[in-house]
Amino acid sequence: VSVALPTESRAAVLTAYAEPLELREIPVPREIEPGALLVEVEVTTICGTDVHLCAGKLETVNAELPIIPGHEFVGRIVAMGAGADRDAIGTPLAVGDRIVWEHEACGACPACSVQLAPELCPNRRYYMFMDCTKPPYLVGGFSQYCYVFPKSGRLRVPDEVDSDWAAASSCALRTVMHAFERLGRIAPWETVAIQGTGPLGLFAILAAKRSGARSVIAIGGPQERLDLARDYGADELVGVEGTDPESRREQVLALTGTGPDVVMEFSGAPGAFSEGLGMLRRGGRYVVVGQVGGFEDPVRPSLITTKQATVIGSWSASIAHYWQALEFLRLTAADVDYGRMISGRFGLEDATLALQRMSDLLEIKAAIYPSGVTGR
Amino acid sequence: VSVALPTESRAAVLTAYAEPLELREIPVPREIEPGALLVEVEVTTICGTDVHLCAGKLETVNAELPIIPGHEFVGRIVAMGAGADRDAIGTPLAVGDRIVWEHEACGACPACSVQLAPELCPNRRYYMFMDCTKPPYLVGGFSQYCYVFPKSGRLRVPDEVDSDWAAASSCALRTVMHAFERLGRIAPWETVAIQGTGPLGLFAILAAKRSGARSVIAIGGPQERLDLARDYGADELVGVEGTDPESRREQVLALTGTGPDVVMEFSGAPGAFSEGLGMLRRGGRYVVVGQVGGFEDPVRPSLITTKQATVIGSWSASIAHYWQALEFLRLTAADVDYGRMISGRFGLEDATLALQRMSDLLEIKAAIYPSGVTGR
Amino acid sequence: VSVALPTESRAAVLTAYAEPLELREIPVPREIEPGALLVEVEVTTICGTDVHLCAGKLETVNAELPIIPGHEFVGRIVAMGAGADRDAIGTPLAVGDRIVWEHEACGACPACSVQLAPELCPNRRYYMFMDCTKPPYLVGGFSQYCYVFPKSGRLRVPDEVDSDWAAASSCALRTVMHAFERLGRIAPWETVAIQGTGPLGLFAILAAKRSGARSVIAIGGPQERLDLARDYGADELVGVEGTDPESRREQVLALTGTGPDVVMEFSGAPGAFSEGLGMLRRGGRYVVVGQVGGFEDPVRPSLITTKQATVIGSWSASIAHYWQALEFLRLTAADVDYGRMISGRFGLEDATLALQRMSDLLEIKAAIYPSGVTGR
Amino acid sequence: VSVALPTESRAAVLTAYAEPLELREIPVPREIEPGALLVEVEVTTICGTDVHLCAGKLETVNAELPIIPGHEFVGRIVAMGAGADRDAIGTPLAVGDRIVWEHEACGACPACSVQLAPELCPNRRYYMFMDCTKPPYLVGGFSQYCYVFPKSGRLRVPDEVDSDWAAASSCALRTVMHAFERLGRIAPWETVAIQGTGPLGLFAILAAKRSGARSVIAIGGPQERLDLARDYGADELVGVEGTDPESRREQVLALTGTGPDVVMEFSGAPGAFSEGLGMLRRGGRYVVVGQVGGFEDPVRPSLITTKQATVIGSWSASIAHYWQALEFLRLTAADVDYGRMISGRFGLEDATLALQRMSDLLEIKAAIYPSGVTGR
Repeated sequence: VSVALPTESRAAVLTAYAEPLELREIPVPREIEPGALLVEVEVTTICGTDVHLCAGKLETVNAELPIIPGHEFVGRIVAMGAGADRDAIGTPLAVGDRIVWEHEACGACPACSVQLAPELCPNRRYYMFMDCTKPPYLVGGFSQYCYVFPKSGRLRVPDEVDSDWAAASSCALRTVMHAFERLGRIAPWETVAIQGTGPLGLFAILAAKRSGARSVIAIGGPQERLDLARDYGADELVGVEGTDPESRREQVLALTGTGPDVVMEFSGAPGAFSEGLGMLRRGGRYVVVGQVGGFEDPVRPSLITTKQATVIGSWSASIAHYWQALEFLRLTAADVDYGRMISGRFGLEDATLALQRMSDLLEIKAAIYPSGVTGR
Repeated sequence: VSVALPTESRAAVLTAYAEPLELREIPVPREIEPGALLVEVEVTTICGTDVHLCAGKLETVNAELPIIPGHEFVGRIVAMGAGADRDAIGTPLAVGDRIVWEHEACGACPACSVQLAPELCPNRRYYMFMDCTKPPYLVGGFSQYCYVFPKSGRLRVPDEVDSDWAAASSCALRTVMHAFERLGRIAPWETVAIQGTGPLGLFAILAAKRSGARSVIAIGGPQERLDLARDYGADELVGVEGTDPESRREQVLALTGTGPDVVMEFSGAPGAFSEGLGMLRRGGRYVVVGQVGGFEDPVRPSLITTKQATVIGSWSASIAHYWQALEFLRLTAADVDYGRMISGRFGLEDATLALQRMSDLLEIKAAIYPSGVTGR
Repeated sequence: VSVALPTESRAAVLTAYAEPLELREIPVPREIEPGALLVEVEVTTICGTDVHLCAGKLETVNAELPIIPGHEFVGRIVAMGAGADRDAIGTPLAVGDRIVWEHEACGACPACSVQLAPELCPNRRYYMFMDCTKPPYLVGGFSQYCYVFPKSGRLRVPDEVDSDWAAASSCALRTVMHAFERLGRIAPWETVAIQGTGPLGLFAILAAKRSGARSVIAIGGPQERLDLARDYGADELVGVEGTDPESRREQVLALTGTGPDVVMEFSGAPGAFSEGLGMLRRGGRYVVVGQVGGFEDPVRPSLITTKQATVIGSWSASIAHYWQALEFLRLTAADVDYGRMISGRFGLEDATLALQRMSDLLEIKAAIYPSGVTGR
Repeated sequence: VSVALPTESRAAVLTAYAEPLELREIPVPREIEPGALLVEVEVTTICGTDVHLCAGKLETVNAELPIIPGHEFVGRIVAMGAGADRDAIGTPLAVGDRIVWEHEACGACPACSVQLAPELCPNRRYYMFMDCTKPPYLVGGFSQYCYVFPKSGRLRVPDEVDSDWAAASSCALRTVMHAFERLGRIAPWETVAIQGTGPLGLFAILAAKRSGARSVIAIGGPQERLDLARDYGADELVGVEGTDPESRREQVLALTGTGPDVVMEFSGAPGAFSEGLGMLRRGGRYVVVGQVGGFEDPVRPSLITTKQATVIGSWSASIAHYWQALEFLRLTAADVDYGRMISGRFGLEDATLALQRMSDLLEIKAAIYPSGVTGR
């Protein structure tokens, strides 16, 4: 690969929690290890985890500042390490190809090799949590270039799939795909309640409808998101603004009689777990995805026993789910206006603003274009 | 059936919560409905639910006082309604046969007919919760005679199975069998932690060992029960007396490294749910059976998501699990000293004492012999 | 119930295999047992099993001639036995109500009580296979009246569901619903091949599309059925007329690359099993429903091992699946032209003709109106 | 790694089907690729596949002669490629360590990355099927040294596990472990029939008993194997010598009433599939493992439908199952006399004899010691 590599990459860097990001020039690693890639980031969409991390509110993972935020991205290959000429399903890769890539599981632990659940790998290297002053430096998405770890699964993005959506697939949608895999079948007469109308909840509405659910109840807000939920197929809307858990439970019971057959939590909100458990029908399944805040919730465990509930945690995702996410996008591209989910587009210099607007629920999903919005 | 029926049945009756039971003569119903049976109770073993109900501490079910406690029993058929000549698997029944029987599911609701989960039937008639001054009067086990509802599944007790154990199978063991069915496979390299060393926990230890678990950790007390847990096959014991949840979690992690593959809750104790969830390994399964007290527990839902836990509620049981329980007893009768679990035997006149001793953890399982202990 | 019962019922009776049916007057039973019903048959749609039975080609079940064919029907209640005032999910029933009903499982055998698979009950009483000269006489659908066995589950037909479709739901569609339940989840990126474009195959196409299958390949014929398959959503058609198994396998592989993720057999044809197994992708699932002919097929079992196939038999259905079928019809009624499947309508006097036309594949589904087509 | 590598490895080579093996000196590859290992083979146990391959009777895989047979082995590390310093679960590896290793899946195809079923990888490189005149030459077990492919999962053998058993675990037992994983739970009241009493069948008897099966029926021969089956825990023995399928089916039905709940096929014999399907109870599960011969079997597919059978193919295994196999050995080492399964020990020069004795059923499992039996 004879392309001259850049020596520096402009990035928006988090140096202190709850402080504005700093624009810095970060060194590009000299060497691309065997299996690794260097990509030019096309777009990094912002995930709730980015927002919480930058605000210093993420308790479940340790980051070493300074870091480059962003882990939901699509890029074009600039340089390739030895042996990195195929993606995770064998598609040939070349410089210039668009790809998505996953956090790096170690491939040599019980989670990876025995349980076949690489998303649970205890040695996983996560983009966005590593010190960007140490090699390989470029391990976050708010940057012109990003380094793809040698063992990070990566996939070529199908031509039918727009980069904005592909970016969103690389954390939000693949997490939703994993959750639906963990859930299993939704029968045609089953009602699904979705807690949360952020990007995960919105993708979940699409997935539940595509799976043939009889009815999908979206519980969320603000109104703009509820409107999009409706347009994405939600049959019923339950707003969370100005309502309390008990009134929402009653509203859902009024809609369903004995409660939804399936509840899926994507809100991340404190109290959402006990609320969702409270509305589930007896014998129902409850998939819990968004509860990463580490807070306590005064749950009545008797609801699990007496309802004979099946409560299914689903954590992150592996490259299998990235594939599922890209396929889902490809198969539904003609039917769904995914563009509406990307509500705001920003350059690196406005990354702090983008985070703030996400935090204020003024954006559904904000996208960062490291080479500039005008460059699109 | 030409046997002269008795006209009255002596019973120990709960007239007020937390008060001693009263011995009363209860009328025997004149008519045995089609499908129903009248049985002479051989033995009623006492379940924790009896204890909590009589103490007025059961929040999840409504009882109409006065009631006859007891729902874990074996009896001999005295009179048979029309068409009641076969048990739930087709075995012919006759006067004098020993049987166990279940609460009565309605057979005509979505839980019964569509979900095939009769244990979730909302119309279920439970023994022990109905007013004994109204027909059919004899719907509890602290009584010489008991009425078996027309649609209550019933099973002839195999000759190899002692009445004391059969009684215990009719609530404790069948509940455990159901929990193991909900759990699914335990692989030979998996460690199972059992919360609770009361009768359910003890049966669960036996079932987990029989299923080939690599190691079973029993978490409970007092010492007498831990000793029996050991003798029933528990590989490791963790006492709850004088320890706190965090120390127990550390103890279990010290034994297992990353936590048990499976945790099963049979303790009914407040806080047990968050404790069990806290020790579970990532990717593990947690079966929750004993949490019927209705109390709150300050759970961190992030543990469900980040551990990718599968939390499985299991409620009561149906006649299928009574069959499983009797089979389990029959198949293990030669290997297990089930008699040790029945720690005390009482007549009806000592039923209050028996309940108190259960409440004080002075008995593992107390048995009531309505016709007298000496009559055995 | 004070309605005067009829004393006779006109019926088309099979007295000898492969002979025309005889019109006879059959006695109406004097007594409606507790739990039983007498219904006036609105419509009986003809199932392939009726055709094979009348032709004397059904090896897997024994019938006692003379019989009244027909087991796929809807009727209006004329008389009700004691206690028959609610349907299987608790809906009140009254004279005049439209219902569907199932074969009668015994409710007292391991299949019914322990395995919760009443469709496997060895004591099941099937409509259409019993001698109509013995009480309760009216146990087939080619008759003005039909007797509903006491333990036959029954369901009130929702008003939105046309009687013709309800009839078809009572064997064809409930069998398909059962098959999909046995199959479990179809993921949005999965391709399903359906063998057979008779009524079961056509319903399966609808169900697979509703479940979100990426692509459905219909393998069948003749052309009229393939056209309907296309209109019901099949993405690809593979004709069986003038083609051989190997060419069809190649055609399916050309469409799918490595073979369908799921194959479902509803054709009943000799050789269909080995053909379906041959096209399945490695790791795929194969649901086998139509293979009731008892014939041999030269299968290579190595395909099961080396493909790591999961082959799932699905037999008949229970009342749970009737409920699913009615719900499916109700939920899709606005979107699907079910009427097109009922290709011919006949009076009792033309029942022999209707059977013959089914046998000659001149009808997709023929319907018998015992009170006359003009009476509709 | 400064150990001087050998330059040649003595091996027994198959140059023509059904001909005696030739002793040859095979070059040792000069370079150990990153991730690869060179091991000194301690012992290679002989699998039925070796026997069939050498006899020219293996239709399902293509081999390129000349080859070095043997793929069920344990070896000590002699040289390590870069980055090969940990095994599949992270255990550090060093020269001198004993390991087992798997066939090499590509890690970059849908089977590997999306379906997480590397055993189905279409690009899998299998030991024993590759031309030993081409690098890396040493890809079979009848050789002093063996090359471990870069992506072949490998595991350090626990000290408690004897090399002979570890070798047998590396094909026979891991295949059995996979089959039990595919099967899922065996309930304590379930009867399991095992077809075949070769090493796989014998391991399966041990696994079924360890899983708590009520009763295990071993169907096989000759007598010596049936004796070992009995000693390994089989409750009932059914001999195949001098009996026909129908008589065996009757014998199994006499033992079980309605047929085994589970049948597992490990015999590899023509006709075994239809025989096993014929004896299965309605609603049972049938795991098919040994059917790799590519022959036809006149199956009645109606048995799958009318029995509502679940037929589960299980192919080979991945490193997860090697881990399971080693754990199984370790956990049961004190209770099982595994040594009895290794019925004969041979040097390389007697490899042809060993194969012949396996073919003649004179050995249960023969072991080859490439450095000589006396050297043990």
